Amino acid sequence: MTKQKVLIFDTTLRDGEQSPGATMTHAEKLEIAELLDEMGVDIIEAGFPIASEGDFNAVSEISRLAKTSTICGLARANFKDIDRCWDAIKHAKSPRIHTFIGTSPLHRAIPNLNMDEMAERIHDTVTHARNLCDNVQWSPMDATRTEEDYLCRTVEIAIKAGATTINVPDTVGYTAPVESADLIRMLINKVPGADDVIFATHCHNDLGMATANSLAAVEGGARQIECTINGLGERAGNTALEEVVMALKIRGDIMPYETRIDTRKIMHISRRVATVSGFAVQYNKAIVGKNAFAHESGIHQDGMLKNAETFEIMRPEDVGLAGTSLPLGKHSGRAALRAKLAELGYDVADNELKDLFVRFKDLADRKKEVFDDDLLALIQQNDAVEDRLKLKSLRVVCGTDGPQEAKMALEIDGDIHEVTATGDGPVDATFNAVKALFEHTARLQLYQVNAVTEGTDAQATVSVRMEEEGRIATGTSADTDTVVASAKAYINALNRLIVRREKSAPGEDIKGVSYKDVGV
Amino acid sequence: MTKQKVLIFDTTLRDGEQSPGATMTHAEKLEIAELLDEMGVDIIEAGFPIASEGDFNAVSEISRLAKTSTICGLARANFKDIDRCWDAIKHAKSPRIHTFIGTSPLHRAIPNLNMDEMAERIHDTVTHARNLCDNVQWSPMDATRTEEDYLCRTVEIAIKAGATTINVPDTVGYTAPVESADLIRMLINKVPGADDVIFATHCHNDLGMATANSLAAVEGGARQIECTINGLGERAGNTALEEVVMALKIRGDIMPYETRIDTRKIMHISRRVATVSGFAVQYNKAIVGKNAFAHESGIHQDGMLKNAETFEIMRPEDVGLAGTSLPLGKHSGRAALRAKLAELGYDVADNELKDLFVRFKDLADRKKEVFDDDLLALIQQNDAVEDRLKLKSLRVVCGTDGPQEAKMALEIDGDIHEVTATGDGPVDATFNAVKALFEHTARLQLYQVNAVTEGTDAQATVSVRMEEEGRIATGTSADTDTVVASAKAYINALNRLIVRREKSAPGEDIKGVSYKDVGV
Repeated sequence: MTKQKVLIFDTTLRDGEQSPGATMTHAEKLEIAELLDEMGVDIIEAGFPIASEGDFNAVSEISRLAKTSTICGLARANFKDIDRCWDAIKHAKSPRIHTFIGTSPLHRAIPNLNMDEMAERIHDTVTHARNLCDNVQWSPMDATRTEEDYLCRTVEIAIKAGATTINVPDTVGYTAPVESADLIRMLINKVPGADDVIFATHCHNDLGMATANSLAAVEGGARQIECTINGLGERAGNTALEEVVMALKIRGDIMPYETRIDTRKIMHISRRVATVSGFAVQYNKAIVGKNAFAHESGIHQDGMLKNAETFEIMRPEDVGLAGTSLPLGKHSGRAALRAKLAELGYDVADNELKDLFVRFKDLADRKKEVFDDDLLALIQQNDAVEDRLKLKSLRVVCGTDGPQEAKMALEIDGDIHEVTATGDGPVDATFNAVKALFEHTARLQLYQVNAVTEGTDAQATVSVRMEEEGRIATGTSADTDTVVASAKAYINALNRLIVRREKSAPGEDIKGVSYKDVGV
Repeated sequence: MTKQKVLIFDTTLRDGEQSPGATMTHAEKLEIAELLDEMGVDIIEAGFPIASEGDFNAVSEISRLAKTSTICGLARANFKDIDRCWDAIKHAKSPRIHTFIGTSPLHRAIPNLNMDEMAERIHDTVTHARNLCDNVQWSPMDATRTEEDYLCRTVEIAIKAGATTINVPDTVGYTAPVESADLIRMLINKVPGADDVIFATHCHNDLGMATANSLAAVEGGARQIECTINGLGERAGNTALEEVVMALKIRGDIMPYETRIDTRKIMHISRRVATVSGFAVQYNKAIVGKNAFAHESGIHQDGMLKNAETFEIMRPEDVGLAGTSLPLGKHSGRAALRAKLAELGYDVADNELKDLFVRFKDLADRKKEVFDDDLLALIQQNDAVEDRLKLKSLRVVCGTDGPQEAKMALEIDGDIHEVTATGDGPVDATFNAVKALFEHTARLQLYQVNAVTEGTDAQATVSVRMEEEGRIATGTSADTDTVVASAKAYINALNRLIVRREKSAPGEDIKGVSYKDVGV
């Protein structure tokens, strides 16, 4: 059976990153983009260039660096947005402008345009985009709640104006599979010129059906699926890339479509996105959850299994879960570390390896076995920003009988300051010490600890999400000492907030851009 | 439009609890069963009575207590299992025996039966079950990978032998919506007697399509959906109750079916199941994730929204998320506490309120604002088991410069013992202190910390999952001091392991019962 090609359009860096708290740094965006490019994503939606300088710069640099992926930027239905978008993506080998407007009655009310006025706006903006770029995607936001006739009319206008891809977003996660397939089928059958463009599906998971809705749209004729790693995104998130890709791979018998994705890279990018976004993946998440493969959960222990297929429809190796790789220990050498890192998908330069090896040895001295996840945590500490604040030392006393006390030395712009602070619990005392040494008004939004590996000497990874005047930053850190990891993660988040504070006046990041306008 | 009724069959306590690490105590099972009963679940699968004394006792007590739900027990295809199941459920107002056998080629190979031998076994066991109980459910395990003809043949035998419900399990999470609907439709069209029974769908989420597959099965003619709270279950879990129920409610226009579920009870039971199972729900989980409702995520802040429906297809109140309820503080009185508890779904007796109020005041002294989630954490500490080990005091010193040290006093069977232990980090030192005072071989499988509420004085909830000779127990505890919460959670898990150790010889819990046999 010949399989038809389905394009994978990843919007982790746009619709995913837009979800409150998932904000990524510039370096993190570049890293995720590189991983997406390497895994075979056809189109990377890298950001929303007009939203902020940061978004513009990220889209711009990703455009220059991308090897095989098309790089797409988002723009609302106005010339200024579209021009800014083009400026950011024009250096890409293969650039795409994605412009959109909300076409449903509820969304038409926001800019207060009637049907005819909106139709004209669509014609003008798509034409403008197409004059700049050969590759233009247009989306009628909230398509699934738009009147059928008006939807056909606007799609026709966009096609005539030069759109090469028509994306049909289920913005509120409202549709169901049969309806999703029918909608695409209806558009392809009714709209003149539909055969000359690619239809795309963009689903949200509010009712838990994003994956099925996306695949149904493909059966209806869509040839592009919009998705994010781990299903990251606002509310219940977007369609999860790993689910649609694996479903097409496993059920090729009833869904004869194929993607370019190298599925063995799924686990690595899933972990990286979970870490940089601060959105952990639940244990029973399909494909990438810790328990997704039965063989991990001790079930194999009963030894009753004659054939792995009895309970497994895919192999852990297919998604890049290393099977039985042995942990490293304190006697492991530099070559073993390099080999293991390569196995994990990291090709490190010599000087980086040197630095990592020192920290690996330090960890191996404190931990009997160094697992893959420990190494990943170690590597992730390397992506440090230029930090104004650095933890020099910390001593905490805590327990059932107060006071809880933290004595901290913090380097601020090169000078060392010390303080002893109290608090409710060791973490509160530690955070109070930071506050006493470096005044700030940021509010803690999320504090989360995970043991990276098993055993009581496990490293703990702490994620701290902070908010200050509308700016949000997430810091992470790993250490065998939870309290030290907490202090470092908090300081890490603060350093990131400071960078943002220096870059923009309060609220400037989203000046003139309502999140409401970009919920494609 | 008249809506047809779809029965909700909840298997949180059987297929959910069976997932490694999700083991619940007797008291927890009773609590969850009561909540399921109250929320309108039609059938509660309460356990697998022959698996262990514990399972038998839980099913038995739930049967006596259930008010409106039918209580179902699981049994393999043999008389001993079925008799034991009947003994456990016979006191229920409405009992049901659920018996099953794997009918696919891979599963037929396990008991090494040929098609005819298996057919005879099905006839004999269903007949036996029906002689004991009027309400019998039969499942061909791995139905979606069973040859169509053989599936029809076995279903016909089961119906003739007296089965009243035929459940069609997608044991490995392999199917897709169209296929799922077609399978049920085919069975109803082809099998003689199909009109006299109810068909059920039982899906797993391995490819992320459990919800859509279940709803498609309903469109194909199924009138019972098997599911679990939060989608709890092995691997990627089962169909999530909250997703199918809310999808039917929201999309009644295209799916004219209704359930008896009081959806306003969803959030409360979701939180309870997450806590007692130790399986946290991810932020972007549909319906019950923290971010599932946009209004929680700060998006409202831009104030652009003219109409909530623009981005919301359901209201937070519909699933029992209290809208804008104010937090309590140190000046809140007993009446305010009782009112708030009632709002959260807890009807507490006077003496229980008294105890809770003392602990509420203690917390309010340490925390400016006491949120709903803080109260839930407080209540959950009340369900203590009879504990052999109790933490009397703890003093921990930790930080960047070693040694990390924990001084602990532990009450063991009434006597107080003290020790000072070191470790890598405060948590490791604390756990080492427990080990020094009470020897055990249990291994830490999971260590997880979540801040219950926002702010640096947040309470931390710690979950600890431990494993000893195949037995698994999860302990949880909340405290503003993470290290104290960790110690209590660890001791809590140990107490539970001790209970299990005393109840059964190693492995006896699953003696003769392979998990493989129960992956319906």
